[in-house]
Amino acid sequence: NSSLKIFSLNSNYPLAQEIAELMGVELGKSSVKHFSDGEVQISIEESIRGCDVFIVQSTSAPVNEHLMELLIMVDAVKRASARTVNVVIPYYGYARQDRKAKAREPITAKLVANLLETAGATRVIVLDLHAPQIQGFFDILIDHLMAVPLLSDYFLSKNYSPEELVVVSPDHGGVTRARKMAERLKAPIAIIDKRRPKPNVAEVMNIVGNIEGKVCILIDDIIDTAGTITLGANALKENGAKEVYACCSHPVLSGPAIERIENSPIKELIVTNTIQLPDEKRSPKVKQLSVANLMAEAISRVYENKSVSTLFD
Amino acid sequence: NSSLKIFSLNSNYPLAQEIAELMGVELGKSSVKHFSDGEVQISIEESIRGCDVFIVQSTSAPVNEHLMELLIMVDAVKRASARTVNVVIPYYGYARQDRKAKAREPITAKLVANLLETAGATRVIVLDLHAPQIQGFFDILIDHLMAVPLLSDYFLSKNYSPEELVVVSPDHGGVTRARKMAERLKAPIAIIDKRRPKPNVAEVMNIVGNIEGKVCILIDDIIDTAGTITLGANALKENGAKEVYACCSHPVLSGPAIERIENSPIKELIVTNTIQLPDEKRSPKVKQLSVANLMAEAISRVYENKSVSTLFD
Ligand SMILES: Nc1ncnc2c1ncn2[C@@H]1O[C@H](COP(=O)(O)O)[C@@H](O)[C@H]1O
Ligand SMILES: Nc1ncnc2c1ncn2[C@@H]1O[C@H](COP(=O)(O)O)[C@@H](O)[C@H]1O
Repeated sequence: NSSLKIFSLNSNYPLAQEIAELMGVELGKSSVKHFSDGEVQISIEESIRGCDVFIVQSTSAPVNEHLMELLIMVDAVKRASARTVNVVIPYYGYARQDRKAKAREPITAKLVANLLETAGATRVIVLDLHAPQIQGFFDILIDHLMAVPLLSDYFLSKNYSPEELVVVSPDHGGVTRARKMAERLKAPIAIIDKRRPKPNVAEVMNIVGNIEGKVCILIDDIIDTAGTITLGANALKENGAKEVYACCSHPVLSGPAIERIENSPIKELIVTNTIQLPDEKRSPKVKQLSVANLMAEAISRVYENKSVSTLFD
Repeated sequence: NSSLKIFSLNSNYPLAQEIAELMGVELGKSSVKHFSDGEVQISIEESIRGCDVFIVQSTSAPVNEHLMELLIMVDAVKRASARTVNVVIPYYGYARQDRKAKAREPITAKLVANLLETAGATRVIVLDLHAPQIQGFFDILIDHLMAVPLLSDYFLSKNYSPEELVVVSPDHGGVTRARKMAERLKAPIAIIDKRRPKPNVAEVMNIVGNIEGKVCILIDDIIDTAGTITLGANALKENGAKEVYACCSHPVLSGPAIERIENSPIKELIVTNTIQLPDEKRSPKVKQLSVANLMAEAISRVYENKSVSTLFD
């Protein structure tokens, strides 16, 4: 009968703290510091022998720093005789490099999966991978959570009538996600038919579906530079949308994102806290919902060897 | 009959360039950039199908950035159908985390070896690993070069008589290295008998061996914060040394290093270019010798399937 230990690294301490509180445990004592030359120095300050250890770390920016912290921590936990080494990665970085789109490209999302296994991870819990296929990059067990129920509940609480609403996918790749939210809201879907000339630059084309006079909810998994989503919002407004909300699981919000959102017709942007937002990425328009409950429930189920997928039934 | 390709990543482009020039080849065309969110974006801009590829990258600061660049490049090279993927790591970072000194520590030097193999490296060329045992952390072939001949030749060119000289190890761990240099200079050795209370802080004790009136050459593998070497130099001067030189393979030179060296009795610090020195780490006292010749010779021998170890006979 082994015991549960939850450790946080540096990427998202508040989320780990919230998870631990919900589960009624204290975060494990550890520290991540740096030697004078910048090398990561990890120390685990309590025994974890025979324990089921859960390490909470998003591989958000600075991604290489956060990923190396995680790999080194996994190594330390493994060598400290933990029974299982579970990595909880609310935001899985490098997920967009999940295939060779051009010749001689790396497949970094697969590399990261291999690195985690090599370091000694025995199980992984993630949320809304950019492509669900990334689950298959792992040979160890993986649990894939989703934020759609959480985001949908937020919009349900606004008490719009289903006839007023339409859930909009900002591109073809996101239609399945939009469909899932639409089912929960009992609303129809629409699709923005766009072409992207190069990474981080988005180009809006026409809208497939009826959005005139409707309250539109744009949904994406990642909002990075916010080009796609703000151009999408403009297109919706120009085509007669009454109001435009946007939501996503992972608020990467790099470069001009906040400025673009503030200057856009988006009324509110609903995101989760898989990525911790520094002050300069906060805005009155951006509302963060917590995935802590979902994560805590998933950790409990893994620990008690119960089904995680039924969480979404 | 496959062909040779040398690629440089971002840590030490001038060294890679010098190696390529000495070998009469052009560096392979590639670029390492970053997406807006900071994720590494690598592109290899020429075919390397069937080639023997050598990737030059020191895992010097920022170590996590440089290490991830290397791992991602190895993945890309492997997937581009290279025949062999050789990583040339003039400075191997995380080498000081090569054992569990305390309970629950990671062994990051071993982790890094595993990560390189997992990414797809087929062979490794390194120079002066902090502990030669790190060679055994690899299951792939490894060639271990040393800078002692290069450093020794520099001091030989000063034409001191062997009677004037003494080679000094700044600690017990470095005696073998001092011995190797002493043989080349036909000089005796001395040892500084010190105790280090905590990392990056050094404490000098007494000197074993005769250094009075002598020209002392302190030798270490890494000079990081320069605490050890400058306290050693002080102790030598206080005990009657005529002059104190210092030398090392890897000029990490973090934190107060340059200031300490400038304020110390060290006459000249001889280092190599395994680590590229930014302007703020340059000083009139610090002289950099190039390992490019040595590296180029090692790469040629690996490529031609000849013995590398006989380089040092
Ligand atoms: N961090 C990143 N930021 C922007 N673009 C990326 C990033 N990582 C990968 N990509 C590119 O985005 C494309 C995949 O995006 P997607 O079509 O949304 O799956 C690939 O062509 C990648 O080259
Ligand atoms: N980057 C670093 N800077 C300073 N100390 C380190 C570093 N990496 C590891 N160490 C510590 O240095 C010790 C090993 O140094 P050494 O005795 O020189 O082999 C170990 O106890 C490590 O905890």
